[in-house]
Amino acid sequence: MIGVATSDRCEVFSGDATDQLLARELFDALHAAAFDGTGITREAYSPHESQALGIIEAKARSLGLTTERDAGANLVITLEGTEPDLPFLACGSHLDSVPQGGNYDGAAGVIAGLAILAGFHAEGFRPRRSLKVLGLRGEESARFGRAYIGSSALLGALHPGELEARDRDGHRLGDCMAGVGADVARIGRGEALLDPARIAGWIELHIEQGPVLVARDLPIGIVTGIRGNLRHRAVECRGEAGHSGAVPRWLRRDAVFASAELVGHLDRHWRTLLERGRDLVVTCGEMGTDPREHAIARIPGTTCFSFEVRSQSREAMETFYDIFRSECAMIGEERGVVFSFDQRMETEPAVLDAAWIARLKAAAESLGLPAEEIPSGAGHDAAVFANAGIPSAMVFVRNQHGSHNPREAMEIGDFLAGIAVMRAAIREALE
Amino acid sequence: MIGVATSDRCEVFSGDATDQLLARELFDALHAAAFDGTGITREAYSPHESQALGIIEAKARSLGLTTERDAGANLVITLEGTEPDLPFLACGSHLDSVPQGGNYDGAAGVIAGLAILAGFHAEGFRPRRSLKVLGLRGEESARFGRAYIGSSALLGALHPGELEARDRDGHRLGDCMAGVGADVARIGRGEALLDPARIAGWIELHIEQGPVLVARDLPIGIVTGIRGNLRHRAVECRGEAGHSGAVPRWLRRDAVFASAELVGHLDRHWRTLLERGRDLVVTCGEMGTDPREHAIARIPGTTCFSFEVRSQSREAMETFYDIFRSECAMIGEERGVVFSFDQRMETEPAVLDAAWIARLKAAAESLGLPAEEIPSGAGHDAAVFANAGIPSAMVFVRNQHGSHNPREAMEIGDFLAGIAVMRAAIREALE
Repeated sequence: MIGVATSDRCEVFSGDATDQLLARELFDALHAAAFDGTGITREAYSPHESQALGIIEAKARSLGLTTERDAGANLVITLEGTEPDLPFLACGSHLDSVPQGGNYDGAAGVIAGLAILAGFHAEGFRPRRSLKVLGLRGEESARFGRAYIGSSALLGALHPGELEARDRDGHRLGDCMAGVGADVARIGRGEALLDPARIAGWIELHIEQGPVLVARDLPIGIVTGIRGNLRHRAVECRGEAGHSGAVPRWLRRDAVFASAELVGHLDRHWRTLLERGRDLVVTCGEMGTDPREHAIARIPGTTCFSFEVRSQSREAMETFYDIFRSECAMIGEERGVVFSFDQRMETEPAVLDAAWIARLKAAAESLGLPAEEIPSGAGHDAAVFANAGIPSAMVFVRNQHGSHNPREAMEIGDFLAGIAVMRAAIREALE
Repeated sequence: MIGVATSDRCEVFSGDATDQLLARELFDALHAAAFDGTGITREAYSPHESQALGIIEAKARSLGLTTERDAGANLVITLEGTEPDLPFLACGSHLDSVPQGGNYDGAAGVIAGLAILAGFHAEGFRPRRSLKVLGLRGEESARFGRAYIGSSALLGALHPGELEARDRDGHRLGDCMAGVGADVARIGRGEALLDPARIAGWIELHIEQGPVLVARDLPIGIVTGIRGNLRHRAVECRGEAGHSGAVPRWLRRDAVFASAELVGHLDRHWRTLLERGRDLVVTCGEMGTDPREHAIARIPGTTCFSFEVRSQSREAMETFYDIFRSECAMIGEERGVVFSFDQRMETEPAVLDAAWIARLKAAAESLGLPAEEIPSGAGHDAAVFANAGIPSAMVFVRNQHGSHNPREAMEIGDFLAGIAVMRAAIREALE
């Protein structure tokens, strides 16, 4: 059933012909429904998102699978097990997109899940526990400023106050969720719509949103964890403005030179920690002198910048954060500037399940596919499942040009490789 | 006549009582005429500037000195020599200010000149060559974007096309100059209003616009030269934007980290050249990521910054500029970013006259005052005179809080010390 590449290094994975037909049909249908002239737009809790759920649901039914909508208005496709009271295994992803996004971010994971259920159903494979595909809503933060709304509401991780969030047109999140059929009364009471103990595991396929698989020429990667982050939106470096010609170096308190020294030191510490095997990325995404007072001939008195460190390890993030603060203090003392910090924001890293990682790697090896581990830098619904105590895993599929843009580009062969690995691992777990 | 401090280090210079009365009276009158509620506003070629010329002129006449307006509508006060056909010696400074500026920037040099002429006149000192005070107009660039208009027009260094410059309200420079009585027809033909060969020397007292004299506890400084500069308004560093969590360090082309490394390297080279005795200041007054595309969770793809190097030595500026360009190339190669540069702008440094510097230092020493040399980082009319081939010199007076703001603060004792040194040096040159 599964074509295996002839060389050690998987160059072309031929995949399953039925999977391929299904994938092409569904990606085409989703594209046709949501292409806005520039990219794909199916925003959280919008009619375009509902349309995507409908397309997948109709196909699932035509393949003989049972479908329903859960209390969060997500799509649920079920292959019922022989012991349906056992906790079920779930796979899938989300069906919304950012405005003018791509066709694969999210949808690929739902289609992969459907392909696996359809294959098992067609061959008459009936596991003990049920296997479900979730087509989740509201993963992207673009519309309401909150990510993972669908999975969070499902698992009781959405604070009732968050229903008051509004989109750019003033629409209230709670109203939009009610509009597509979610039980906002229960969400408003802070109830989990689904008991996490009912879910035996969560397996999510997703395109890689970074360039690592492309750069390393790997069709797929087995995700080890989802990076959390520590952030400041605004760190201010305050020195003293002055005439750029009239103040010598020894009397300067130049905010740009101080900030540059800080970034330079952070870069060196980052490199050192990477060399010692720590998982870490560091970014100052926004930085600038103050346009209200800067000038070419004026020593800059102030800079403001954002700071972000991400890691799969809480300890690595906190270590780097401490180094950051201590560098600010030292450079401040040496250069006569003062760094001040707004509220620190935190997102917990998510540890993915070691047994599932081992199972996915073994499946890849048995299929002649590379079984490389890769961290996830972007957040995913899988982090919500993992942090609810559900054993979770992810498979990344190679993708060019990142995500959240119309240029995202996944090769169908790589996608079929991801499906094949997931299918083999799930079968192994269910048998 | 001149009080000398009792200690080696001049703590209090008592100065000349007549100078002090004159200075207090004129600074008060200038302040009363131009205080706008926040600071001093007497903009180039404005009625407030004309009013300042009138205040000084009236006082000069009341002291028995001859006054006139030259073809550039500047104030000229003359102590006629016994051989008036000889090239004359000139001192003074400018009488305009930036909006909401201070009372001393410019005016101090004109009052100092008047005090010297008045003193010589009162004691009946009649030199061979005439001694003149120029109360210049239009030194500040704040109104028309062009600095040193008055001195440049006088010495034929104002390009006729520059008369077309307009202020923020649309007023044309040429019209404003004509409005106060300047001969714009001659300026428009590119004529020098005054033959530089008629001027034997130019001596200008000015408040220091930097903090060096305050930091070194010196009442005055003898200026060695006026720094020129090499500038780019906008250097762009272009890397590649990306997801801040999903792109590892080895695949990043981060414009902030690249720019920070550049600034860090420039800082080190600057320090090295200072240690080897070169005169140099380096500034990136404006720097920032692109607000249209930056975000906390996005690797910054672009930064834009200004670059300025200033020195009294053309060679030092060019050397540092070459280092800057070579660092951009090396960092670009290492980090996968590209630096691009707008048009380079240049201002020539001005070398002040060695004989006058020696004369001023000897005068300071003879008065028991420190005779420290100091470069001028800011531009001054003296640079226009020096670059027209006229032997020129400057005395700086200690001043707190820089200039171009209402907080500039010159102690009257320091000002009197500056007048005393200038007076002694001019007398020595004229005798």
